[in-house]
Order: sequence, then C-alpha cells, then structure tokens
Amino acid sequence: MGMIGGGPGAFIGAVHRIAAAMDGEIELVCGAFSSQKEKSHEAGIMLGLAKDRVYDSYEEMILKETQLPPEKRMEFVSIVTPNHVHFHPAKLALENGFHVVLDKPVTFNLTEAKELKELIKKTNLVFCLTHTYTGYPMVKEARQQVLSGKFGKIRKVYAEYPQGWLSTNLEANDNKQASWRTDPSKSGIAGAMGDIGTHAFNLAEYVSGLTTSKICADINIKVPGRKLDDDGAVLIKYDNGASGVLFATQIAAGEENNVKIRVYGEKGGLEWKQEDANSLIIKWPDKPNEIYRAGTGYLSSYAAHNCRTPAGHPEGYLEAFANHYRNFSLCVKASIEGNEPEKEWLDFPGIEDGVRGMAFIELVIASGNTEHKWTDFVF
Amino acid sequence: MGMIGGGPGAFIGAVHRIAAAMDGEIELVCGAFSSQKEKSHEAGIMLGLAKDRVYDSYEEMILKETQLPPEKRMEFVSIVTPNHVHFHPAKLALENGFHVVLDKPVTFNLTEAKELKELIKKTNLVFCLTHTYTGYPMVKEARQQVLSGKFGKIRKVYAEYPQGWLSTNLEANDNKQASWRTDPSKSGIAGAMGDIGTHAFNLAEYVSGLTTSKICADINIKVPGRKLDDDGAVLIKYDNGASGVLFATQIAAGEENNVKIRVYGEKGGLEWKQEDANSLIIKWPDKPNEIYRAGTGYLSSYAAHNCRTPAGHPEGYLEAFANHYRNFSLCVKASIEGNEPEKEWLDFPGIEDGVRGMAFIELVIASGNTEHKWTDFVF
Amino acid sequence: MGMIGGGPGAFIGAVHRIAAAMDGEIELVCGAFSSQKEKSHEAGIMLGLAKDRVYDSYEEMILKETQLPPEKRMEFVSIVTPNHVHFHPAKLALENGFHVVLDKPVTFNLTEAKELKELIKKTNLVFCLTHTYTGYPMVKEARQQVLSGKFGKIRKVYAEYPQGWLSTNLEANDNKQASWRTDPSKSGIAGAMGDIGTHAFNLAEYVSGLTTSKICADINIKVPGRKLDDDGAVLIKYDNGASGVLFATQIAAGEENNVKIRVYGEKGGLEWKQEDANSLIIKWPDKPNEIYRAGTGYLSSYAAHNCRTPAGHPEGYLEAFANHYRNFSLCVKASIEGNEPEKEWLDFPGIEDGVRGMAFIELVIASGNTEHKWTDFVF
Amino acid sequence: MGMIGGGPGAFIGAVHRIAAAMDGEIELVCGAFSSQKEKSHEAGIMLGLAKDRVYDSYEEMILKETQLPPEKRMEFVSIVTPNHVHFHPAKLALENGFHVVLDKPVTFNLTEAKELKELIKKTNLVFCLTHTYTGYPMVKEARQQVLSGKFGKIRKVYAEYPQGWLSTNLEANDNKQASWRTDPSKSGIAGAMGDIGTHAFNLAEYVSGLTTSKICADINIKVPGRKLDDDGAVLIKYDNGASGVLFATQIAAGEENNVKIRVYGEKGGLEWKQEDANSLIIKWPDKPNEIYRAGTGYLSSYAAHNCRTPAGHPEGYLEAFANHYRNFSLCVKASIEGNEPEKEWLDFPGIEDGVRGMAFIELVIASGNTEHKWTDFVF
Repeated sequence: MGMIGGGPGAFIGAVHRIAAAMDGEIELVCGAFSSQKEKSHEAGIMLGLAKDRVYDSYEEMILKETQLPPEKRMEFVSIVTPNHVHFHPAKLALENGFHVVLDKPVTFNLTEAKELKELIKKTNLVFCLTHTYTGYPMVKEARQQVLSGKFGKIRKVYAEYPQGWLSTNLEANDNKQASWRTDPSKSGIAGAMGDIGTHAFNLAEYVSGLTTSKICADINIKVPGRKLDDDGAVLIKYDNGASGVLFATQIAAGEENNVKIRVYGEKGGLEWKQEDANSLIIKWPDKPNEIYRAGTGYLSSYAAHNCRTPAGHPEGYLEAFANHYRNFSLCVKASIEGNEPEKEWLDFPGIEDGVRGMAFIELVIASGNTEHKWTDFVF
Repeated sequence: MGMIGGGPGAFIGAVHRIAAAMDGEIELVCGAFSSQKEKSHEAGIMLGLAKDRVYDSYEEMILKETQLPPEKRMEFVSIVTPNHVHFHPAKLALENGFHVVLDKPVTFNLTEAKELKELIKKTNLVFCLTHTYTGYPMVKEARQQVLSGKFGKIRKVYAEYPQGWLSTNLEANDNKQASWRTDPSKSGIAGAMGDIGTHAFNLAEYVSGLTTSKICADINIKVPGRKLDDDGAVLIKYDNGASGVLFATQIAAGEENNVKIRVYGEKGGLEWKQEDANSLIIKWPDKPNEIYRAGTGYLSSYAAHNCRTPAGHPEGYLEAFANHYRNFSLCVKASIEGNEPEKEWLDFPGIEDGVRGMAFIELVIASGNTEHKWTDFVF
Repeated sequence: MGMIGGGPGAFIGAVHRIAAAMDGEIELVCGAFSSQKEKSHEAGIMLGLAKDRVYDSYEEMILKETQLPPEKRMEFVSIVTPNHVHFHPAKLALENGFHVVLDKPVTFNLTEAKELKELIKKTNLVFCLTHTYTGYPMVKEARQQVLSGKFGKIRKVYAEYPQGWLSTNLEANDNKQASWRTDPSKSGIAGAMGDIGTHAFNLAEYVSGLTTSKICADINIKVPGRKLDDDGAVLIKYDNGASGVLFATQIAAGEENNVKIRVYGEKGGLEWKQEDANSLIIKWPDKPNEIYRAGTGYLSSYAAHNCRTPAGHPEGYLEAFANHYRNFSLCVKASIEGNEPEKEWLDFPGIEDGVRGMAFIELVIASGNTEHKWTDFVF
Repeated sequence: MGMIGGGPGAFIGAVHRIAAAMDGEIELVCGAFSSQKEKSHEAGIMLGLAKDRVYDSYEEMILKETQLPPEKRMEFVSIVTPNHVHFHPAKLALENGFHVVLDKPVTFNLTEAKELKELIKKTNLVFCLTHTYTGYPMVKEARQQVLSGKFGKIRKVYAEYPQGWLSTNLEANDNKQASWRTDPSKSGIAGAMGDIGTHAFNLAEYVSGLTTSKICADINIKVPGRKLDDDGAVLIKYDNGASGVLFATQIAAGEENNVKIRVYGEKGGLEWKQEDANSLIIKWPDKPNEIYRAGTGYLSSYAAHNCRTPAGHPEGYLEAFANHYRNFSLCVKASIEGNEPEKEWLDFPGIEDGVRGMAFIELVIASGNTEHKWTDFVF
C-alpha cells in the first residue's frame, strides 16, 4: 500500500493506517503524505518507511512506483487527502494500473465522480470508498435481515448523524480538521452534508436496500461566519414508496459521533447505532424484541466474515474500517491471482456509492436552496 | 370529579381514573361514561359509584350536578371522549362553572379550540389539557435547564414519537381504539399527527421554550385502506432562528411509545426519552455528560415537586399523568380557597397548548398537501 | 383500609397509600398514624379522614372498628410502622378478624414470625407482606419463565441490592428514616440485611423457584459509629445444587435502589433490574437474546394481569406496590364473597415469605459472626 | 516480535498478532507456532513469514535468533501457549536477553511465577502480562480517579466476569479452547478461576488501588464430568478495611464476556463494564452522575494516551490489547535507546500482577476446599 495524504495533523490518515495494518495482510510501503515535500518526508520517516519510498508528491510516487519491479511495487494506493485532492490522484493511480482506496466523499463534485466511474469500469481495477459504518458486522447483518424479507416491504427509514464538534467557530482557531472541512475550495459545495450527511445517506440505502427518489432538505449554517452548512435535515421518498427522514448536524453541542439507523417494514423493524455497535436490535410487534450480537454463531455469513473476536469482546470503529480494507485486499488478491472473490468479500462500498453520494451532496444543497418541496433525485 | 367518557373498551379513561386517584386528593363522584346510557350505567356500577350519580348523558350530568348542594357537587369534569366529543361537553361544563380536564387534542378543529380559549378566559376557570409527557419530572427539569440559559441560545430541536401499533389495518378488525382514531368524523382531519404528533409538538415547544414559525411536512398514509395519516415528518423553523425535526408515526412496526426529545444550544444539549423516563441526560462538549435522576435532592423545584418516590424507584406514565391532575387540582383548590397558586402548580398544559396543538394539526396537514416547502405557522 | 403508622415524616406510609388508592378499589377509611396521638390526628386530618375514624392508637382503632357495623367497618389493616411495631398490631388485627397488609420484614424476630404464621393459619385471613419487587410484572414473568423449564435446571443465581443513602452517618443528624433503621431496638438484629437484604433474598427465591440450604456471609458496619450492619454479601447453596451470590449494601455512595436479579440454567438465563423495570432480558447461548416488555400481548397470564398501561408507557415502583395491594384485595373480596380466587391473584408475598425472611436475617447475622464457612439454612 | 504458540485453532494468538500489528510499530518476524513442527511451519507460511524464520520449536527459535545480527534479530517474544508452556519459554527468552510478552495467567503455578519474577529482576528486561481489561482507556481513567482521592477512602469493590460458553461439556466435543482450559495438566489447578477469575482479581486491585488480605471462596464444578472449576465466587477483605465481592463463572448460559467493576468510596463511586467499554460512570450521592467518555479532551493523561479515535468512535477489546503491546514496546524502545520511559507507558501489567494472580489461583482453590471462612492472602 502507498498512501497519499495523511501527514502531520491529519486525523483520517492514521485511521487508515491502523485499519490497513490490523489484520497483518497489508503493509505500508510508500507514501506521499503531504503537498509540502518536507512534511511528506517527515511523516515517512516517522512511519519507518525506507527513504526512497517517501515521495515529494503523489505524481512522483505513482510514476516511480510504476517503474519498480512488480514484487516490490505497491499494489494499491490509499488516498486520504481533503476532498479537492481526491479525483486527480485516484485518476492517475487507476491510469497507471493501481487499485485504489479512497476516503469519502469520493470527489469534489459529481462530474468528477462520474468520470472516475467510467475509468474504473474501463480499467477493471478494484476500488473502495471508505464509508466506515457499513463495515460494522451488525450493519451488514441489518442489511441481510432486511434483504431476507422478514420485515415485509420496507415503509420507513430514519438515519441520523449528530455531531457537536463544530458548534463553535473552530476554523477561526487554526484547527486543521475544521479548516478544510468548512472551506468551499477544499470541501466542495457542502460541509456537514458532505462530511457526515453522505454517511447517513449511504447507510440508509445500504441497510434498507432502497433507492432514493425524491428529497426535501433544510440546510443551515448555524455558527456565524461559517461558509458551509453545518446542519441539515432531509425528508426522503424512496423508489418503493417508503419514506425517510435523514438528519446530520455538526452543531449538536455535546454529541460525539452518534450515527443511528432505523428501518421498519410491514412486520417488524430494526435499529443500530454506533454507540452500541455490537448489537443489532430487531423489533417485533407481537413477540419479544431480539438482540443480535457480533461474534456469535448465529449471524449471516456477511456479518460473521467481518467479526474478529468472540461475542462480548467489543469491536469498534477501527475494526469496521479495517473490514473495508480486508475485503478490498481480498478482492485485490483474488484479482491478481485470477480467482473469483467470495460474495462476502465484495460487500464493501465502491464507486457506485461514491457517485450516489456526490449526487446526494449536489441535490441536497440544491433542495436546500429552493422553495419547492420535492427535488427529484436524478442525476 | 365527574367523568365524561371512559366507558367499556376505552383505554384513556382508565388512565385518567388511576391518575386522578393516585394521590388520594381526587375522588370520582359521578360520570356519564358513554353515549349509550346502558353502557354508562354499567361502567358507573363497576366503578362503585352511587346510582344517582351515574348519568345517561353528559348534558344530564352537568345539569343535575349543578343542582346539587356545593359540598356534594362535583368540582370539575374530566373529559376523555374521542375528539369529536371534546368541545361541547367542555363548553357546557365551563358555562356551568365547572373546572375542566380534557384529553388532547383539545377539540375537533382549530375554530372550536379558539372558542374554548375565549370561554376559559371569560369564566376564569381552571383548565388542564393532558399532554402526558410534560408531566414527567425530568421533562420539567429539562425545560428548567433550558430556561436557565446554561446551554446558550437554542439551535436545534429533535422530537420524535414512533409507534407501531397501527402497522396493520386494525380498524378493519373492530379494534375500538383504532376505529375512532382513524375515522375522520371522530378524530378530525389528522390521524397520527393529531394523536401523537401533537404530543411531540407540545413537548418540543415546552422543553425548548421556543415558538414554531414555519413548518414543512411530509404526511403519509402507509397502511392501504386507511383514511387518515399514520405517518409524518416535519421540518421546523423556530422564532429564534433555531431549526427542528419532528416525526411521529404509527407504522414503525415493533415500536411501542418511544417518545424522545433532544435540544441543543450553543454550549451543550439534553436528551430525554420515555423509555428511560427517570433520567435526563445533559451533554457537554468539553466535560463529562451528566445524568440527572428523578427523586434526587439536586433537582429544580419544578421537577422535585413532581416526584413521589426516592431516586431509583422508578415513576412512570401514570405518575406523569397524575402530576397533571395533582397540579390542576392544587390550582382548583387554590382558586376555591381564593389563594395564589405556587408557580410549580401552574406548570401543566392548558388551553394555549390546546390552541397551538390544533393549529399544528391544521397546518401540518395543509403543509403535507402543498408543493410549497415552507408553510407559515400562523393561525 | 385502616392504616397503622405512616404519620408525618414516614416514607413508606405514603407509598402504601398511593399503592392502595391507585386502582380505585381501596379506600382509606381510618387510621392510627403515630404512637403520638396528636401526630396521628394531624395526619388523619391532612388525609381527609372523618375525625371519628382517626384513632389515638392502633389498639383503639382495632377495638372501635370492630364495633362498627360491617358495611362501615374497615376491611383490612395496613401496618407500616418500624419493625418493632409489626407483630403486635398484626396479631391484634388478625385476632379481631381483620385481614392484614404488613410492611417487610414481617416482624422483629423469627419467633414472632412463626407465631404470626400459626395465627394466620388458624384465622384463615388474608395476609400480604409487601416485598415490592415481586410485584413488578416482569419479575412475575421471570419466575414463570424459570418455572416453565425453558432454561433447564437452574445452576446460578445472582441477586443484588446496592444503595448509597447511608454512606454517611445520617442517623446522627436526626434523619427519621435512618434513625430507626439503624437502631437495634426498632429495627432488630440487622440493618441493611433486614431492610434490603431480605428483598434480595426474597427476589432470588421467588424468581429462581429454589430454596436456600446453606449460606456464608460477610457482614459489615462500614460507617463509624453505626450500630447495625450497613453492608453484606452472602454466598448461597440452594437445595437443587445451584449456587448463588447475594449482596446488599447501603454504603455504595451514589447508588440509588439498584435491585437486580440474574438466574442461569443449563440452557439460558435471565436478567431483570429495577432501573429498567419494564424489560426482562432473556439470554441464550445460541440464538439472539430476547427482550420481553411489560404491557405486550405475549406475556404469561401472571405478568399480563399485573400491567396497567400499553407497552412503552412505563410502570414503576408504585405500580409494583399497587399490584400487591390489588391482588391482596382481590383475594380479600373473593374471601368475603366466598369465591375461589384466580391463581394470578394469589401471586403476592405472604407469611411464608415473611418467616423465611426472618430466618434469613437471623442466620445471615449468625453466619457473619462465625468463623465457619457454611451455616445451614434451617430454622 | 517472535511468537511462541498461536498456531492453527488457537484463539488468543490471532488476538495478540492483531494487537501487535495495529499501531504499525511492531512486526512479526519469526515464530514457533506449535509444538508440532509441521503445524508451526504451516502457520508461519500462512502468516507470510520468511521460511527461515519459522522454527520447529521455541528452543530452536530462541537459539537461532540469538545468533542473528542485532538489527535482524527479533526484539522480544510473545508467548501465547496454554498455561503449562508459559514458564519455560519465558525463562529461556529472558535468559537469552529477549523482552517478553506473556499471556495470563503468568505460569502453571506460583513457584514458577516467583522464579520468573526473580529472573526478570536480575535481567532487567521488559515484561508484559496481557491482562486485557486494564488496557481499556476508561479502566485507566477509573484507576486515576480512585487514586485522585475524589471518592475518599474506598469501602467496597464488586468485580464480576460471567461467561456462558462452558455451560455444556464442550471439552468432550473436541473444542480445542475448551479442552486445554479444562485439563489440569495444561491449565493448572484452576479452570474458571485461572482463566477469568484472575482477570477480575487483577481488575479489582488495579482500579481500587487496594491489596487483598483475606478471601473466602465458593468454588464449583457445575457441568458434570468437568475436571476443573467452571464457577466461583469470592468474598474479599482488603488491606485498608474495604470489603469486596468477586465472581467469575463460565456456566452463565447466554452471557458473553460481561466483565464489570464497581468501586465505592466514602463520597462516591464508579462503574465500568466491557459491554459499554468507552464509558466510565461516576456516581455521586448529591449531584448528577457523570459519564466520562473515551476520546474526549478532559481525560487523565493515562487514559488519553491510550485512545486512538475521537469520542464516539468506539474502541474495543483489540485496542485494549493493543495498548498493552504499545506501552510495552514503547518501554522496550526506551530501554534499547537508554531513555527514561514516560510514566503513562509504564502502566501495563507485569510480573507483580502475574505473581499475585498465581497466588489468587492457589489461595482461591485452597479456600474453596476448606471449611474455614477466611483464608489469609499470604504467599
């Protein structure tokens, strides 16, 4: 693995490195960790890389790695830069034959996302978009239970992601994380909706198995002086007639990362939240609720494949993240060896999630700006 | 106390009777329990009333009670009928000098509510509308904490009330509770929005101390054949610039009565839910969250006044309901004795809540029917 | 109902009154509320009793009530005095033909309890001992599930009751509740073990259906200057070979009334705690855990009979208490009318629980004082 | 790192490898993964090791690694074998200058533990015993809060570890994990008490800061045919006069790994459980309870140093385990570089915990076998 971004002060770079390292299958062999070459080298040394594998820029990295003998060359790149530096390195990597892991949202805008989709199709390389929450085993179990049909037709979806860390004007105080996320030139047209709204959107479609058809959004900037939305709520219509409510906010002072999804069908429903990530609550109107637990013997193959520890020894955010890396790398390996991947390995977010996520960002901001109630989810 | 409605098969009548009886201050002395006089008498006997205090109709009851000597006469009426039989008995009672407890929503439509408001003003009688949830001590504590200013300006309110009991077409199966609630001639223009949406609306304004200024609603009938909404979600703008999300549904199969409120200000927030009714969670971005507990010694006078048991011995729904009766009856007593009521006694829902609730019903249905995004909350 | 004790400053008297009043079936008609006659009359007036039904002493009350015509006379007495004033009024009441509700522990010592048992047997009157926690519907459900055999043979029982209210020397500060509870002349030979240890003991035998055969106790006085135990833990052997752990403490600073019971058999187990009183968690090794909820349609007849509100509207401590009163009064009524009570009505604690509780108190203190590990639970 | 044990079918070997790999600081370079050399090589290949670094036996590994040049040589060994193969490889490693990570319990018996202690003292090498639970940041926070004195003198400790996985005779069905754990020749004189009782014991002393002085144990074999205890409970006296209750069981059918610790002082108390590992509940008698959360900014340096993700992104068992590896390796690095380790790095379990754990095993079994109540905790 070669990493692009993730130098000093970055948060998500370290998460990617831990997630990749966890299962002992992926080794960080090179990197271009910053747009400033000194910082890139500083990070590379700190991470114990060989000097000649720390690069001044991602362009140099991709070029030079291509020239290495296959057994030494990195097999894929992991791109963990701010949004405005997603598309170009991903494109360059794909064009040079490298598989790609990319942090979400996939690109700076929808046009780039569509172009990337075409490129991935053409190159037939493996692509992973790290929507963390669908990496949790109990989220995978949730999806499988919905798909099994046990709840009947799905009628209602509630997805929420309240955070509180941006309830003050952090970006005015030189907080690196806050600064780029609230800067339209780096983050894109959306703030909270792009950063965490897309997670809630992805989670809702993943678990419910439904496709969004219309949205009606209330998008707000709550902290004076902020340039991008820090709060929003969306009414949703799904293709099967179900309706939904999605909200994401970064100004719910006191909230941490309280992601939660609820889905209800004709016969029952389910609830999952990150705060109790190893439980999936199944609700029935006429019999006791059930608590499915990670690491147990009765889970679907999709959930079981993504557990590392026995029931009761909690797995968390890093393991969910690592599941994406593991499944991606199993698919890369299968691709290299010319094998068919197992169906459970293929269950990680890809470019289709990325394109839909960018469409969500563009349409939700558009909906927020119109006086019309419903905006068609077409793109 | 004389009761109107609450005969055989009624649910809320029994709740009112328990709530009224609990503190040993209120005695049921008469009633007109059903529009069918046999059923009224049957209920009266079962409840151990003297035969001559069980009436054929509420009109008869009010008339005859008026003629009794003051020390024998009922002091107030409790009206627990379906919505279409709220206004007339309330009006008659008030016109004859009786204080009134009325189940929510206050009337069949907004016009009646406004008329009732005028009448209450004119008669100066005590009026209580039983929005149960604001009777919980920790909901009262929540309001006091918001009003204290400790969270700074309020920015965001989430209120939700998911139920699942109407996820099938119960009304087709002779379920008395389902039948009138889904019948426009008895319930009014709204189903779920009137039955439980009004609770969420009331709770949100009560705890946040804010006034709704605009709404945008998605109102649905999810169960085929149903005549009134059984599901809805509302985006809200408040007068101070805060925004909100409210949802209420009766088709979340597997949900019971999962009322929950969250309010966030600039500096922190709070969360309360009926499932853990004796706890109030206060959330801070920079220090440990706090759990305020019912029955403890550190609560505000408003919460403390509404606790009966020491901390850790849970109080529930009936006690919350009983708090409204207790505060109402303390005010009735003060009124009779010509005393000024304590400020804590006055903290129960009244006609203003009723009028706002009816406005919510009318406007939320109107909003659901328009293609315009925002509907002004004016009435 | 006539009440003995429960005057000014008493805690449990008010609880008994609310519990008795709640269902509208029991009326407080007379009382001797204090050993000081002025205080008794003061309480009676506050409670709205007729002057001639407030008595100077319980002896007077029982005597005078006996002389009233049957339709006016109280039907039973409720005794809510400190432990040293349990036996005599109960005896007098029974000897004069009154049914009795008695607060736990049943008497001052085991000898009295045995004598009371004989008297109850002889008089054939209805007797209820208010071990609150077995009044909770989900505790009743727990017992029924164990008795159904679904868990196989029971192997392990954990019962606990941590409180914190006596972590300081409250009795030195004129706290009425603390004073008598820590005074050997009023409380008996045990403090915490008598006050709350007996609750845990009763709960454990009730839910598990097992009989204690040996105990090994560690009994402590943690607060300097205190005269009776404020903390204890007990290892238990049951008759079927199961083992148990019971602990109760009043010095767990910060704990409220955190009663909890866990029972495990060969095939599964259960957990109930007062903090989440409306849920019963059933645990399985090989399938999802289940949450049984109060007020639902799938409960045993024993649990269902003891629910008042629909699922999700929580019932609490007062309702649990009221269930004992309701079942007791249903049995009293059946007895008066010469009918056979329903089996569900009979499910309230009685003199056998009382005798076993007193045996627990005497043997647990004895065990605490010996260097021998196991003390036989024989009496 | 070189690994001893952890071949096919082992559970804890994989956990150690993930924990060591997670932070990208430790590389597995060699191993002797099984006492059967074919299995060792099979595992080594699967783990991607160079062929010449997979050894037939741990003796060979230690010998050959010693002969490698320092920069290539493993820096420490990680021993993850069953208990009877702890002492010899640890001794050999230490004697040859390798730092050691060892799974608990430290040795097969107390004598070995004491000998190991002497050897560690003599060699001055770094030694880590992987008592997982003290690796959780909120457990470290708990200890720091107790040590701060905010609760006053500690009076009561409750430590519990209920599991259910051995509620049937798994060892009769060729379950590798069950087989050695229930075999006295591999596990030692204790089953549940050695496997998980030691965890509870270690956790209790770690968090409370107290030293055990007397114990009274009830030790049981609940599953017919089993050779070692699968259940036990212990009354404890601590050196400062506090008392405790500890229980551990493997036959609580339906329980997973429900480790929990509660500690109470004169002024307040705390509670932590693995099921909600990222929260530490602080309880106060006179003010709201507080929830300290992992990843926040207000934690002690000991807790903060052991967090990887922002608050609300849960960390779990593997991260707790990884914290021991990380702190151990920081100390190894400091030792190699001749630097003084930070105080936070030194906070991982070592040989003293190991010796006390073995004393617990021997004394708890002895106590279980005597009719005497209290057994002195001296060794």
